[in-house]
Amino acid sequence: MLGNFTYCNPTKLYFGKSAIDGLNEELPKYGKNVLLVYGGGSVKKNGIYDKVINILKACGKTVYEDAGVMPNPTVEKLYEGVERAKKAKADLILAVGGGSVCDYAKAVSVSVNCKEDPWDKYYLRMEDVECDVIPVGCVLTMVGTGSEMNGGSVITNYAQKLKIGHVFGENVFPKFSVLDPEYTYTLPKYQMIAGFYDIMSHILEQYFSGEDDNTSDYIMEGLLRSLIHSSLIAVKNPTDYEARSNIMWTATWALNTLVAKGKTTDWEVHMLGQAVGAHTNATHGMTLAAVSMAYYRHILPYGLKKFARYAVNVWGVCPDGKTDVQTAEAGLEAMEKWMKELGLVMNISELGVTADMIDGVAKSTLIMDGGYKVLSNDDVKQILRDSL
Amino acid sequence: MLGNFTYCNPTKLYFGKSAIDGLNEELPKYGKNVLLVYGGGSVKKNGIYDKVINILKACGKTVYEDAGVMPNPTVEKLYEGVERAKKAKADLILAVGGGSVCDYAKAVSVSVNCKEDPWDKYYLRMEDVECDVIPVGCVLTMVGTGSEMNGGSVITNYAQKLKIGHVFGENVFPKFSVLDPEYTYTLPKYQMIAGFYDIMSHILEQYFSGEDDNTSDYIMEGLLRSLIHSSLIAVKNPTDYEARSNIMWTATWALNTLVAKGKTTDWEVHMLGQAVGAHTNATHGMTLAAVSMAYYRHILPYGLKKFARYAVNVWGVCPDGKTDVQTAEAGLEAMEKWMKELGLVMNISELGVTADMIDGVAKSTLIMDGGYKVLSNDDVKQILRDSL
Repeated sequence: MLGNFTYCNPTKLYFGKSAIDGLNEELPKYGKNVLLVYGGGSVKKNGIYDKVINILKACGKTVYEDAGVMPNPTVEKLYEGVERAKKAKADLILAVGGGSVCDYAKAVSVSVNCKEDPWDKYYLRMEDVECDVIPVGCVLTMVGTGSEMNGGSVITNYAQKLKIGHVFGENVFPKFSVLDPEYTYTLPKYQMIAGFYDIMSHILEQYFSGEDDNTSDYIMEGLLRSLIHSSLIAVKNPTDYEARSNIMWTATWALNTLVAKGKTTDWEVHMLGQAVGAHTNATHGMTLAAVSMAYYRHILPYGLKKFARYAVNVWGVCPDGKTDVQTAEAGLEAMEKWMKELGLVMNISELGVTADMIDGVAKSTLIMDGGYKVLSNDDVKQILRDSL
Repeated sequence: MLGNFTYCNPTKLYFGKSAIDGLNEELPKYGKNVLLVYGGGSVKKNGIYDKVINILKACGKTVYEDAGVMPNPTVEKLYEGVERAKKAKADLILAVGGGSVCDYAKAVSVSVNCKEDPWDKYYLRMEDVECDVIPVGCVLTMVGTGSEMNGGSVITNYAQKLKIGHVFGENVFPKFSVLDPEYTYTLPKYQMIAGFYDIMSHILEQYFSGEDDNTSDYIMEGLLRSLIHSSLIAVKNPTDYEARSNIMWTATWALNTLVAKGKTTDWEVHMLGQAVGAHTNATHGMTLAAVSMAYYRHILPYGLKKFARYAVNVWGVCPDGKTDVQTAEAGLEAMEKWMKELGLVMNISELGVTADMIDGVAKSTLIMDGGYKVLSNDDVKQILRDSL
């Protein structure tokens, strides 16, 4: 049953081959000072940086730069970004990059005027934003996180061995995002498929929760089928525009609040993956892939009906003559086959986790209560061992 | 392939059993004068009117009324509404009712400050809004049209025998909408199932267009399956909250611009149905149902691949051992069976169309060019005759 909720997503999206032109419409709405945030410099190699700079200058903006945002943005980088944004008196933070850069831009956005330590307030204590925020815009160069149309922001504190995501409210959502599928072409295959699995996991972690029949579940089945279909095309031909554009659009709708409306959600795979990430600095999507099969097989008996539905509606498993368990397991087998076909990392050993690290990773794993089983510490350790 | 587009839907939705409380959050954002727009008085019988009035008064608003909005709002009523809104110096138009009331509220909203005749400008000539608009809010009491989260507005001119819909831009979208599934319980069964078919038709008329593979098509398949599932429950038990809430949510997403993104659309069934409506004043959803089977069977050869996909992915038709034509036809048979099970009107004779009216109805039918076949006048007449 659809529960009570509110829905509002005000982000304006510019999608397609000329999406960057949207900057000409958006930039005049903000003041002169723009803090341009980006990562390790790939945007300079592929020409996107130059395109953005040219439009910013043509719009009469004063550009301040904050480069070097790492794949898992750290709390130390956040402190540095806050100082840069203050110095720039930024009227707009323009993130050019993937989910990490967008996440980081939002973290800076809510921290510049925050009177407390933002790590403690927003991430450790998960408190609401009370100060003014600096508007954020995005030019997306990697798909997966959905950060371009939501309030999510993940920051890593290596000293505390914690990687925590805060989901901020509508006022922190990007005001606009530029989504050009061709901007994602130059991404290395490893990052591309990691992004595909991140999308998959976003949908599954909202899907595998609750017993009821919900329109959101049906929408998710559609998104999953589109993603599976297009990912198999894109992994063979990364410049297939149709496939990459479908994946980009699916990624946005997988995590922009819509498909969670009226239902409970799980998110334990992200908690496991983020714990692995905090101990290894591995690519986010790969940490999710590496723990998923062990996790889903572990919780299957507790959500049997949904796993059987997943097998039939998403993977086309024919349930005739099968028990629910057999149907459900056939669905997970089909999923595992698809993951291997994409070339995803299927175990945490490959990401650098060793048996003696299991206790530490388990300790870093936050426990959620929306899935089919609330994990005990022993469950977590078992799943991590099964993922080795 | 997903084409180029922009997406922005700023409407705030309050959904569920306490959704009406959202008015307390929204009303303070607007000035003192509220034009309360509603229909034939059912909102007085079911108590919704009293609830709304109490909240308006508690929020200190001066309420002006504009009652009697008919199921197919007329251009004469529009002129009357404009005068009422001017007299009230309305700061907000609050529509309490179904799609017709919301459509009408939007029509008044864009017409109050319009210097030309709004029928000529917006409906006959389909021109953009250049004047200031009065913000609109909705309290929905019937699902189907999606008017609560889009810019659509259909007005009928009986003198000209024309029923025309204009799709206005984001600035005309309702600022907020209150969606309480229980508010739809008291609707008579005829109107309820007509609304269900209106939703179905909105999705199908966006689905049956284009040859490409598109995430939007997958999302629509999910929405269709949710609708089919829940409608069969609701028709037997109209107070099944789960079914009614799923249908309400599906209706909103069927026509709030999302599922048309990146693809072409058809809308010829709406053109045929609206022509029938202009000649009979029949219930909108029933006019669509009455022409649909004839229309889809007429165009099936031109969109065979998509009709076969529809049969398999939406209706669960097994394609093994069948030709594409057989698969596609089995899908339409399943759809026809579902329509009859709901109790929809399956032919236009029942709505008052006689053989000698065919030429007139055909003349009132606008021809769209996004579907699998651009209809000739002979095609239109044939479809109408097949619908008798």
